[in-house]
Amino acid sequence: MRQSKLFTKTSKESPSDEVSRNAQLLIRAGYIHKEMAGVYSLLPLGIMVLNNIKRVINEEMISVGSLEIIMSSLQKKENWELTDRWSDKNVDVWFKSKLKNDTEIGFGWSHEEPITLMMKNHINSYRDLPVYVHQFQNKFRNETRAKSGIMRCREFIMKDMYSYTIDEDAHMKFYNETIDAYMRVYQRLGLGDITYVTSASGGVFTDKFSHEFQTICEAGEDNIYIHKYKKGKDKLAINEEVYNAETLAKLGAVESDFEMVRAAEVGNIFTFGNDKCEQLGLYYTEADGSKRPVYLGSYGIGVTRLIGTLVEALSDDKGIVWPQSVAPYQVHIVTLGKSVNEESYKLSEYLYIALNKAGVDVLWDDREGIMTGEKFADADLLGMPMRVTVSAKSIEAGGVELKSRADGHMEIVKVEQFLKSYTEECR
Amino acid sequence: MRQSKLFTKTSKESPSDEVSRNAQLLIRAGYIHKEMAGVYSLLPLGIMVLNNIKRVINEEMISVGSLEIIMSSLQKKENWELTDRWSDKNVDVWFKSKLKNDTEIGFGWSHEEPITLMMKNHINSYRDLPVYVHQFQNKFRNETRAKSGIMRCREFIMKDMYSYTIDEDAHMKFYNETIDAYMRVYQRLGLGDITYVTSASGGVFTDKFSHEFQTICEAGEDNIYIHKYKKGKDKLAINEEVYNAETLAKLGAVESDFEMVRAAEVGNIFTFGNDKCEQLGLYYTEADGSKRPVYLGSYGIGVTRLIGTLVEALSDDKGIVWPQSVAPYQVHIVTLGKSVNEESYKLSEYLYIALNKAGVDVLWDDREGIMTGEKFADADLLGMPMRVTVSAKSIEAGGVELKSRADGHMEIVKVEQFLKSYTEECR
Repeated sequence: MRQSKLFTKTSKESPSDEVSRNAQLLIRAGYIHKEMAGVYSLLPLGIMVLNNIKRVINEEMISVGSLEIIMSSLQKKENWELTDRWSDKNVDVWFKSKLKNDTEIGFGWSHEEPITLMMKNHINSYRDLPVYVHQFQNKFRNETRAKSGIMRCREFIMKDMYSYTIDEDAHMKFYNETIDAYMRVYQRLGLGDITYVTSASGGVFTDKFSHEFQTICEAGEDNIYIHKYKKGKDKLAINEEVYNAETLAKLGAVESDFEMVRAAEVGNIFTFGNDKCEQLGLYYTEADGSKRPVYLGSYGIGVTRLIGTLVEALSDDKGIVWPQSVAPYQVHIVTLGKSVNEESYKLSEYLYIALNKAGVDVLWDDREGIMTGEKFADADLLGMPMRVTVSAKSIEAGGVELKSRADGHMEIVKVEQFLKSYTEECR
Repeated sequence: MRQSKLFTKTSKESPSDEVSRNAQLLIRAGYIHKEMAGVYSLLPLGIMVLNNIKRVINEEMISVGSLEIIMSSLQKKENWELTDRWSDKNVDVWFKSKLKNDTEIGFGWSHEEPITLMMKNHINSYRDLPVYVHQFQNKFRNETRAKSGIMRCREFIMKDMYSYTIDEDAHMKFYNETIDAYMRVYQRLGLGDITYVTSASGGVFTDKFSHEFQTICEAGEDNIYIHKYKKGKDKLAINEEVYNAETLAKLGAVESDFEMVRAAEVGNIFTFGNDKCEQLGLYYTEADGSKRPVYLGSYGIGVTRLIGTLVEALSDDKGIVWPQSVAPYQVHIVTLGKSVNEESYKLSEYLYIALNKAGVDVLWDDREGIMTGEKFADADLLGMPMRVTVSAKSIEAGGVELKSRADGHMEIVKVEQFLKSYTEECR
């Protein structure tokens, strides 16, 4: 994409009504637009980030056998009354409205009820199980406060997955596979090292097992206790609510091994057990003819929240730092010269065409009349993994100047060497 | 995909509460699930159809220079009061609700206002224009009646595009390019021959030019008059509202050349002109320093409605007939034998793997214990373009039996010949 064709403008100043760092940076860089507190629109670069994250999550959900669906936002009151989750007393985040004939409807904040009811048309026998489905869905939650940018929204995209199995054993097998799939998601998104699985017993949803996925991040809303010495695959963390003598004893650990850090919940998984399907009437017939309620699990990743967490966890004082898997563009060609000189322009165009042809996503700052400092500041703010500067100076020095956004490493490389590294490495 | 792993079940009976043919077939085949009148969820096959249609539309919108965005559903009252489109008197399809602090909010039924207001951050000068953006957005419309299945929903996916240009000339250039892009969409989706551009002057939205795209279809809500003798590229139709002596005279045509047909509106494009941007304060600075309101156009394709129209226009009494570009799977392998015999199973598996490897989307009916008639009935109902039957009989006859869903043509072909035709032709 030629940056001259990208309508979004960067801004030096943060919007005055925005207190969260993630939304400040994303708005300044032109990834998102704020509609109201807790409600954001995604602009072209933002939707590319979203799609990259969705692709990674989708692949990992498919890898555990899930099929994608998309449920409606509009919800029937009767469906949620069956489980006593319609009343505002029990669920305080409903947005509700009315049809023309005065029938009350709600806007989906979660989807266990409608998906389970839908499954009554498709699950009858033990032969029909297991069934795993997931969706990327716009959830609506009427949050009282919404001050964490895109990390706690009134409207946000969530990946929710649901598992229908015959019993606890079958459930736990899938549940544990999903823990691994979730960790692969965070790994691929560049958050693997700072994301922990924490057990989260208790809570309104759970009747047996539940876990959270917590990413270390100052802007998070949770405190977790991480084991200071266990690293890599052995890394261990405990949620604040269950950080007590009993839990430590169970883990054979001592208090001094742990330190408290701030973290953002980037995923959570629940075991519903049999109750929900019993309430909603989803039964299956066993081989012996007996009827049993289906066993339900529920698995969420806040996709928009993940975008916010990535910005919070990885950005620096110059702007956003996207990991390769998430960046809208792998390469950001920056052509210098207030009025760009012909040699630089021609070389940039050559690189732009060659990289695109090789399937590398490239943003090309081909804008004229913009000072060097402003172009560099924009590149840092936008956060593509590799900046490639083309200027009279770089050409004189033998080629193009590469700068890694993540570690700031700079070098001049020959044009053909640069092209070769990208056309062979990428994709 | 192995059909044994697809949780959705087909059904012989239409749901009793569903009067529209498109929803009846889509529900029976397991593409969609009805949540309430005018509200449907998309099941795995349905989401594949949706994604195929979205991909075609997206490619054509990109081809005219548009960038994808996604605006929020939640809408601020103040934004719509600026153009007097908040009150239920003026717009009678709003779903409205309230934040916890009693602030009224609405759920987006269209997005001219928020997109135009967002553009105030990005459009300042004539140099910033033109800007074209489009989105695939869940629209909410509180329809009094919703009896046309997925052709008129209370919640539905729409592709809406918006053009911001300096003046009418620049606008009309893009407007006409978009007419061509829209016709390419319908052509690629298999509706080209029965879809007409009709001019639709008048109407609440328009201040100058507007057109509709109408597909001949009994289930449509409109009457159009088509020219009986003009075919192909010259084909001509007139909307009922403007079918009068004046229009005929303008076209140099006579009444006897036309016949009335039922049609479904599958797209519409509007010229807003300067008014909307003036009301919302979107101005640009001319080269001479003067300020002028931006010129606005708006371009819609009802994506869910298109799915319904495809079903209505192309299905037969046995079920759905998807065009190649829309079908979830190009090939439907049906392995026969009540308990599938080993030779048929092995050959089917070989084909399944080879086609998948070649990038052909394949559904494989590998289910055991299902009678031949039921498998064939399911294949017809599901509507993939090519059924490939593998049975003891087909093997004896020399290979596999192909049946084209669209024209019913059947033939036995050698295995390698079949594979070759698909691995070379498809993708």
